Amino acid sequence: MAAVSDNDIIARLGKLSISAPEVLKHAAVSGGAEWRAELDKAGKAGVPLTKTLLFKPKQPKSAEPTPVLVIAKEETETSSGAIGGALGLKDLRLANEDLIKQVVPSAASKDDVSALPLPAPVPSTLFVVLDSALASSSDAFALHLTSSASTVLLKGTEIKAYLQSLTATPDAVRVLDFAELKANAPAPVARAPKEKKEAAPKKEVPKKDDDLYEMAIQYKKDEDFPGWYTDVLIKGEMLDYYDISGCYILRPPSYHIWQDVTAFFDGEIKKLGVQDCYFPMFVSKARLEKEKDHIEGFAPEVAWVTKAGKSDLEEHIAIRPTSETVMYPYYAKWIKSHRDLPLKLNQWNSVVRWEFKNPQPFLRTREFLWQEGHTAHLDKAGADQEVLDILELYRQVYTDLLAVPVVPGKKSENEKFAGADYTTTVEGFIPTTGRGIQGATSHHLGQNFSKMFDINVEDPNADRSDPNAITKINVFQNSWGLSTRSIGVMVMIHGDDQGLVFPPKVALHQVVVIPVGLSKVEGQNKTIYDACQKLADELSAGGVRATVDLRDGYTPGWKFNDWEMRGTPLRLELGPRDLASKSALAVRRYDNNKSSMPLDNIVDSVKSTLVDIQKSMYENAKAKMDKHIIPVTEWKDVTPTLDAKNILAIPWCEDPQCEDDLKDRSRAEAEAARGQAEDSKAPSSGAKSLCIPFDQQRFGPFPQGEKQCCPQCGKKASKWTLFGRSY
Amino acid sequence: MAAVSDNDIIARLGKLSISAPEVLKHAAVSGGAEWRAELDKAGKAGVPLTKTLLFKPKQPKSAEPTPVLVIAKEETETSSGAIGGALGLKDLRLANEDLIKQVVPSAASKDDVSALPLPAPVPSTLFVVLDSALASSSDAFALHLTSSASTVLLKGTEIKAYLQSLTATPDAVRVLDFAELKANAPAPVARAPKEKKEAAPKKEVPKKDDDLYEMAIQYKKDEDFPGWYTDVLIKGEMLDYYDISGCYILRPPSYHIWQDVTAFFDGEIKKLGVQDCYFPMFVSKARLEKEKDHIEGFAPEVAWVTKAGKSDLEEHIAIRPTSETVMYPYYAKWIKSHRDLPLKLNQWNSVVRWEFKNPQPFLRTREFLWQEGHTAHLDKAGADQEVLDILELYRQVYTDLLAVPVVPGKKSENEKFAGADYTTTVEGFIPTTGRGIQGATSHHLGQNFSKMFDINVEDPNADRSDPNAITKINVFQNSWGLSTRSIGVMVMIHGDDQGLVFPPKVALHQVVVIPVGLSKVEGQNKTIYDACQKLADELSAGGVRATVDLRDGYTPGWKFNDWEMRGTPLRLELGPRDLASKSALAVRRYDNNKSSMPLDNIVDSVKSTLVDIQKSMYENAKAKMDKHIIPVTEWKDVTPTLDAKNILAIPWCEDPQCEDDLKDRSRAEAEAARGQAEDSKAPSSGAKSLCIPFDQQRFGPFPQGEKQCCPQCGKKASKWTLFGRSY
Repeated sequence: MAAVSDNDIIARLGKLSISAPEVLKHAAVSGGAEWRAELDKAGKAGVPLTKTLLFKPKQPKSAEPTPVLVIAKEETETSSGAIGGALGLKDLRLANEDLIKQVVPSAASKDDVSALPLPAPVPSTLFVVLDSALASSSDAFALHLTSSASTVLLKGTEIKAYLQSLTATPDAVRVLDFAELKANAPAPVARAPKEKKEAAPKKEVPKKDDDLYEMAIQYKKDEDFPGWYTDVLIKGEMLDYYDISGCYILRPPSYHIWQDVTAFFDGEIKKLGVQDCYFPMFVSKARLEKEKDHIEGFAPEVAWVTKAGKSDLEEHIAIRPTSETVMYPYYAKWIKSHRDLPLKLNQWNSVVRWEFKNPQPFLRTREFLWQEGHTAHLDKAGADQEVLDILELYRQVYTDLLAVPVVPGKKSENEKFAGADYTTTVEGFIPTTGRGIQGATSHHLGQNFSKMFDINVEDPNADRSDPNAITKINVFQNSWGLSTRSIGVMVMIHGDDQGLVFPPKVALHQVVVIPVGLSKVEGQNKTIYDACQKLADELSAGGVRATVDLRDGYTPGWKFNDWEMRGTPLRLELGPRDLASKSALAVRRYDNNKSSMPLDNIVDSVKSTLVDIQKSMYENAKAKMDKHIIPVTEWKDVTPTLDAKNILAIPWCEDPQCEDDLKDRSRAEAEAARGQAEDSKAPSSGAKSLCIPFDQQRFGPFPQGEKQCCPQCGKKASKWTLFGRSY
Repeated sequence: MAAVSDNDIIARLGKLSISAPEVLKHAAVSGGAEWRAELDKAGKAGVPLTKTLLFKPKQPKSAEPTPVLVIAKEETETSSGAIGGALGLKDLRLANEDLIKQVVPSAASKDDVSALPLPAPVPSTLFVVLDSALASSSDAFALHLTSSASTVLLKGTEIKAYLQSLTATPDAVRVLDFAELKANAPAPVARAPKEKKEAAPKKEVPKKDDDLYEMAIQYKKDEDFPGWYTDVLIKGEMLDYYDISGCYILRPPSYHIWQDVTAFFDGEIKKLGVQDCYFPMFVSKARLEKEKDHIEGFAPEVAWVTKAGKSDLEEHIAIRPTSETVMYPYYAKWIKSHRDLPLKLNQWNSVVRWEFKNPQPFLRTREFLWQEGHTAHLDKAGADQEVLDILELYRQVYTDLLAVPVVPGKKSENEKFAGADYTTTVEGFIPTTGRGIQGATSHHLGQNFSKMFDINVEDPNADRSDPNAITKINVFQNSWGLSTRSIGVMVMIHGDDQGLVFPPKVALHQVVVIPVGLSKVEGQNKTIYDACQKLADELSAGGVRATVDLRDGYTPGWKFNDWEMRGTPLRLELGPRDLASKSALAVRRYDNNKSSMPLDNIVDSVKSTLVDIQKSMYENAKAKMDKHIIPVTEWKDVTPTLDAKNILAIPWCEDPQCEDDLKDRSRAEAEAARGQAEDSKAPSSGAKSLCIPFDQQRFGPFPQGEKQCCPQCGKKASKWTLFGRSY
């Protein structure tokens, strides 16, 4: 899982406003007595100790392990039987070293086991159990950091808050009253809320429909969105967690989306005269730091290479967080004359931003794939036009490929890209959380970088009769980017409680053919199997991305669920009765619509069904978004409308100070309305501007006369502007 | 340019067998007197000092600077006028700090200027001048390393050898006798051999054909192959040097090739059931080092990330040098049953191998683009078949896209991939140097990795009636990769003294239309310009990648040369007379064939011409390769045949020891034949095996009976095997 360091832990605590916790370094200890002695030496005689234990239930060997990590006061009796009973797990045993390493990679031995260096988020397969004697205590306790040679002192409540910050939901940290458990033993006690069943043996001999429950998505989208999101991604095989925190494996269904996006967008920008290239992933320190304002935002997240083999590099080398300062020195070299303009380059690459915030698949990852376009123009008008041409392509990627509605517009001064004259954006909306999400951005950089990097040419239009005229002109530049974040947005919008739902245009498999009505007699099903294969082949030959599921040992019901979880847009069921009637049963994933489809001319029927599905998915998502964009003209309505999971269209003054005030004011009101500052989970963030939509007409006539004032500050409003909580 | 460290310099010296040179650390010095004092303090009173000076000639502002670095004994009078005279450069002046930083990035001030940390290879625009008083001396001299606070003691001959190791050719280091220069001043002395003209002002006002010489390729392919190679790549805008040594910028013409290769190969492997995915570029230390044998070869070249922002990472993280150990732990997790097999994944990514050898564009770079396929199979037969299927696709990439002939075959035991059961390869040949070059490899890994990473399934064919039978089976794996190295091979084979020559299938621009016969009267040329544009549009609409060169201020002759240098396969010239005769003049790049082409139906004519060019280029290259693969059955012919720039087909015994012996013996013979061990430039390497070709018939009947013996060791020979010097 993760290589979390002591520094990472301190940083995480800092984010929870647990600043400067007391850290002690001492000799490595084995067991409580040695530890006690070390703490006594350090003048911490009175501080109570904790213990952290890793258990493993008895499971089929082929099953994913579902270990249990218990954090308790040292003196608490942590009976493995009682814990197992409370969690519904069989035969807990202390984990072996292999499993310890897997769960807590920083642990060099069992004495180093600690909950603090767990990866964030904690894998859904790990149970985290906290002793109730710790959970509500405001006393400070001693815990190990990443090794038994370091101790941090934390209050019981801080330990709880810390653990909750690592898990998908706060109640994924199970608080157990061991005293009560002991009193009630051996009878099993009431189960902890939201417990999960033991993980199913993955696909190994799951022949009965009884297994269906085991493989299904464990969370409801509306009840536990973060848990649901992770679960659909993993079970739908979009991605897998990686042993370096914040890095994820893009499995074929998600990489396929990226290839579809690439094929479309790359084809379109080439029509605009853009050429692809590839710059090195490395950037020297001097280059990276040349444009101070620009790099300021990235500096804390830059990953540095300092060693090669066993040699220390004299000069540290950064991995690009973005390529402005990588590319523009060469633009200065290559652009010698106005004849070399416009220069329009794009690259498809990965960039690294080593964020210390909680990572989230696709949305916040330390390495991500994107394209970055960087163009230079002789005149501002040409650059301005391109900014919009590219934004229009981004809109098409979202609406036409991903079936995701977006609002194109301009960013406020506060929200524009560091170093840009202005930023345009396509903004999406996640109905489940009521939050806005930035889809892709296209920036006009003006001459900011060209002045810094000396990218200039002789102005061909300069008046050469005047010997004093300045004839050098700095070029006008744009940069624009779209990343794999788009995939996460698509999943969040279309997925449901059964799993992923893919729009047909970007589905790795658009259609799956499944044999049904099978005989239990061996060898009786060849006709059906052959017909299924033939149907899939026919579809493939017709240009449909089709597959057939002839796996032995699975019931049709199990397969239906499996392919639903994977989000395959259309399922065709084919059995003896279907064959007799020369038709197949077509089941649409996104609305579960079922219809009989004649086998004659089925390629065309399937194709038009896929077009229908794509269109309907977009229209449904669009209607849902539109319903949640609420024009608000009076302040009293702002926070209640946000709290009802909407984004707002406000007649706004465009003043940066007003935006800051609006954010603070809406946050304060939200917190007050909730009235319970301790419930850290309810939304407490304020609203920020998402964009000033280009289409101002959609919100109706702009307020006129006396009513034309900003609801926040009262100054004269200029534009309908979207505000909301956001990702 | 490059961030070369003291350690890098020591490593470079080590490669030249100048081991453990004496290094002194002391206070930073400004000037000879302070330095003298520091050396005296260190007990080095007698050691003579050197000086290193950077000059810049007077040049047009828009021209690429061509600075001159002079390394001389401290007391030598280094007159800038005399140096300029010797090099044919005007008005040499000491360079300013900006230029110093550009040439020697490690120099913090002018006192730190040193030739030792120059990038390798030294850019062709930099003149390196060595005082003859140093060049031939076996005394030790004091030189600064990367700063004036460190000194290394080197013999004069070692300084010379070191400088020559950095430059494209040994005589690029100009040895000047300053005493003689002074004696002959002020009259210009004879020019040093192989000098280059001052770099031309790049494209800025190059209106006259006089400029043609300036922009042309400065080296002859047959005379100075390394210089030629770099020059055609840079001037043809395939690539540019980067300020981190060993990293290069892939400009659109080279990235375009890669996209064409990607489109073809990705389409084909998908037909074989391979899916694309993306694994993180980072790999934890523990994972990387899990398979010891495998990693041993890569370990010295692994780049390590140890810092993020200002935080030190507790666990260092590697950048993947290849992905076996990155991916296979997940194969173990994902492959639960035989139903999950075969698992066939591929990724398009970049990998990093921080080589300390001299980098070479495309052929040896620290970051390179490639695809790596990794597949797992239930049975060996399926895996074996795939190895060959993939190799056949690699052959097609080379022969059908790049017009490069290759020999498919199997690697010897010595040359196979670490961790593989066997390796197959397509081997190319560079006629100019007579060296073989590995094109791409497809490996069968057997069960080596699956045992290490526990990738296994229940054998569906196991006899379940026997309770003691072992029913787990480790999967059979393959891996296969093709990199951007292929682009370098293509350039080396097809380029000529005029520049690049592209095969049409991978040319960014297949056709360029150039207006000719223009009037000097402003505005008189609109008809021609319009006709050229129309012709290019017509070709584009017809599916030809065509462009038109309507740049003002360039003569047709200048444009012809420019597009020839860029390797554009077909040039169409269109002028008033052509228009009158409804035809264009078509000029083929690769053989300079000229013909008149009617404008009627020109799209078809162009397309068939492009097909012809592609075919002829391949056939010519193939004939050239075939001529240089010489069957040799007696030892006496081995080295002479190698020295005549051939590769050999030998009836070989396949004994690894014999291969080692053959290499040593052929090296020793080559060295003896040359008889001058000091000429480090002539080929001194021995021959190694390139492959055992699958097509054994091409070399004629295999020797039988008594003649069936290995010419090296005399043991019984088994297969025709290619041996040669190689890249």
